[in-house]
Amino acid sequence: MKELEIFPYGTEINDGHLVIGGCDTVALANEYGTPLYIFDEATLRSKCREYTKVFKTYYSDTTIIYASKAFINKGLAEIIKQEGLGLDVVSGGAISIANAVSFPLEKVYFHGNNKSRSELELALSLGVGRVVVDNFFEMSLLDKLAQEAGKIQDVLLRISPGIDPHTHAKTTTGIVDSKFGFPIVTGQAAEAVSKAISAKGLHLIGLHCHLGSPIYEMDPYIQGTEVMLKFAAEMRDRHGFVVSEFSPGGGFAIQYTEDKPAPSTNEYAEAISKTIHSACRAYGLPLPKLIIEPGRSIVGQAGVALYTVGAIKDIPGVRKYVSVDGGMADNIRPAIYGSRYEAVVANKAGKANDQLVTICGKYCESGDILIRDVHLPVIESGDTIAVPASGAYCLSMASNYNTSLKPAIVVVNGGSSRVIRRRESYEDLMRRDV
Amino acid sequence: MKELEIFPYGTEINDGHLVIGGCDTVALANEYGTPLYIFDEATLRSKCREYTKVFKTYYSDTTIIYASKAFINKGLAEIIKQEGLGLDVVSGGAISIANAVSFPLEKVYFHGNNKSRSELELALSLGVGRVVVDNFFEMSLLDKLAQEAGKIQDVLLRISPGIDPHTHAKTTTGIVDSKFGFPIVTGQAAEAVSKAISAKGLHLIGLHCHLGSPIYEMDPYIQGTEVMLKFAAEMRDRHGFVVSEFSPGGGFAIQYTEDKPAPSTNEYAEAISKTIHSACRAYGLPLPKLIIEPGRSIVGQAGVALYTVGAIKDIPGVRKYVSVDGGMADNIRPAIYGSRYEAVVANKAGKANDQLVTICGKYCESGDILIRDVHLPVIESGDTIAVPASGAYCLSMASNYNTSLKPAIVVVNGGSSRVIRRRESYEDLMRRDV
Repeated sequence: MKELEIFPYGTEINDGHLVIGGCDTVALANEYGTPLYIFDEATLRSKCREYTKVFKTYYSDTTIIYASKAFINKGLAEIIKQEGLGLDVVSGGAISIANAVSFPLEKVYFHGNNKSRSELELALSLGVGRVVVDNFFEMSLLDKLAQEAGKIQDVLLRISPGIDPHTHAKTTTGIVDSKFGFPIVTGQAAEAVSKAISAKGLHLIGLHCHLGSPIYEMDPYIQGTEVMLKFAAEMRDRHGFVVSEFSPGGGFAIQYTEDKPAPSTNEYAEAISKTIHSACRAYGLPLPKLIIEPGRSIVGQAGVALYTVGAIKDIPGVRKYVSVDGGMADNIRPAIYGSRYEAVVANKAGKANDQLVTICGKYCESGDILIRDVHLPVIESGDTIAVPASGAYCLSMASNYNTSLKPAIVVVNGGSSRVIRRRESYEDLMRRDV
Repeated sequence: MKELEIFPYGTEINDGHLVIGGCDTVALANEYGTPLYIFDEATLRSKCREYTKVFKTYYSDTTIIYASKAFINKGLAEIIKQEGLGLDVVSGGAISIANAVSFPLEKVYFHGNNKSRSELELALSLGVGRVVVDNFFEMSLLDKLAQEAGKIQDVLLRISPGIDPHTHAKTTTGIVDSKFGFPIVTGQAAEAVSKAISAKGLHLIGLHCHLGSPIYEMDPYIQGTEVMLKFAAEMRDRHGFVVSEFSPGGGFAIQYTEDKPAPSTNEYAEAISKTIHSACRAYGLPLPKLIIEPGRSIVGQAGVALYTVGAIKDIPGVRKYVSVDGGMADNIRPAIYGSRYEAVVANKAGKANDQLVTICGKYCESGDILIRDVHLPVIESGDTIAVPASGAYCLSMASNYNTSLKPAIVVVNGGSSRVIRRRESYEDLMRRDV
């Protein structure tokens, strides 16, 4: 089955059942209930190692930091820590999770366009390695807080290079008309470098940009890197600033559907590192440390959502709706971005896909459609539906819409499984009510 | 200020500060922190009473049930209970909240296109008044469970009348190509009536439809009601079925922006009740009990979101971005539906709106724009932004995106305030991690 390639590494079919991480997914659904999110530990660890290995092949001084906004909890942070990656965080919440698993905080990069005072204070007090300063307000606030704390905070600057990565408008972040970063074209980026250099509480280490996500082409990375390093050279000439860390961000794509494969890590690594080498040569810059921020591409493929089929509604001549017990509360990507997914009927894996159906969720909203018009084997109530490529931006954006319960999360590995986040309970829904 | 009309009743300006429910919103922001959601109790109660009074004026046998998917927690359920309304729920979670505040469960209507077995069992065991059966799978499951429990469950049938209400495609629910209900045009609705009548565990009370939300026109209600009652007459002729409860659903609009006022409750009530009267006369039907399901229009106007301004980014010739400390995690409606909102600078209320800005959130995504291009007074970091019409479908769809903390919720009334849901803590984010 071609669609198995979108699932975690080693996914196979055994006796008509979909098997992930050596675990029968139908048995997992029965044991833990559905909706259930499973992460394959071997895939997670392979992706971490692959990023490190591939990028270092092309560019030895690379640090891979996991972009935790794709998804983070204590169990996942523990795995990322064990694999030796750094962490890209965007909130005090993510910092506190990192801290809770004793993640080495000097390897944490703190991003965001509107970090609060209390979040910056938390970062300073815990010793977060880098704050990626997004704007002048943050710069003076952080400078002041650092000086008050008697510290000098290592920072990067988030630069807006003015590159369009041709992804969804909602996730396009590197263009000039963006809430993120200091634009080069307006002169504000240059001003930011100057101010950061002279800020007593800050130590300017390098430059960062992020172009959007997911990006299926190399051109944005090549253009972005060229623009950024040209800017770095100008800043060297003008302010004597040496960029010792450079990050072209993340945004690396994954395959969601059969018809749209994603570039390999190798392609991204080659494009970015070649561009750095050539630009540094051209501008006479020393090679900076390269910071790479994969999020989706670390956890996306490793994660699979399992649902149980309930009602099936055949409207003759119109559409056959198959309702599952999850939907837009655990995966809002189809509703918000029009994202497409594939599916496999986990208890009928390998059977011919000879029926056209629409998989919808259980939420009271017509937009709650998981997959419109997908060919699957004939489905019955009680079947288990597995949706691949669900590891990124599903759980992290999950809500309690319709007063629903957030799913349990299980890690599978070598035939065994363990819960890393229990399912919400009705009591949880009322825990904060006073 | 014209925009004050979108805020809760009695909202005023005192000494340049926005005052809601007699409480200075700037003081509320200082006391409870931001983002903060406030509900004005007087507006909530007025809306409940207005719906009851206005609909009963036109149609005496009306029951108003609050559509809890707009937003529910224990504090709000308590108010709805005190006001004597019934409750429209769509999950076991909402039933458990109702039960936790001793809501009279015989006044609860249980909706949804894919109710689970455990949810139906919960409804049966607690004595939920009506289950609105959506499909054949649910009908036989509920029939079986009711018989096993030795009960006869009162039910309505969710009918798909084939009406387009001209609202957002994602919230259009009454057309034939819908995951909701039994379509009339295919004959499935008639089959459902026949099956429900003969189901030993079910007692068919009436018919329900829901057309979408928000609906700014009367025509969909008029057409929908006509189609439904024509169908009811056919079912009387064919099966001797007497529709003793009829619900045209909810979907009543509210005003979000100055340029798009919503119809009055009176207009909806008049259109619906006149149509019922004329259709029942035409078809010789006895007047059924009318069930009206407002959600948005009960809580929408009563709710206001308060944010604090952090970074301000002026990109000359492009756009001025004003970042607040909330955004798409607490209000995803702009990102998902393109919804528009107004805003007032709570500590500069009444000042001239002579600056064009874009209010964006703090989340790492370009789609995290709360209000694009809005005229406001000159804004500084630290200002308090109040966004009206935030009571519905904001908190109910809230996520922890970017590992953020869900806001606190405060009820204001007559100059005093009380927390009905405390702000999430970093510990809460990890509570389910094992």
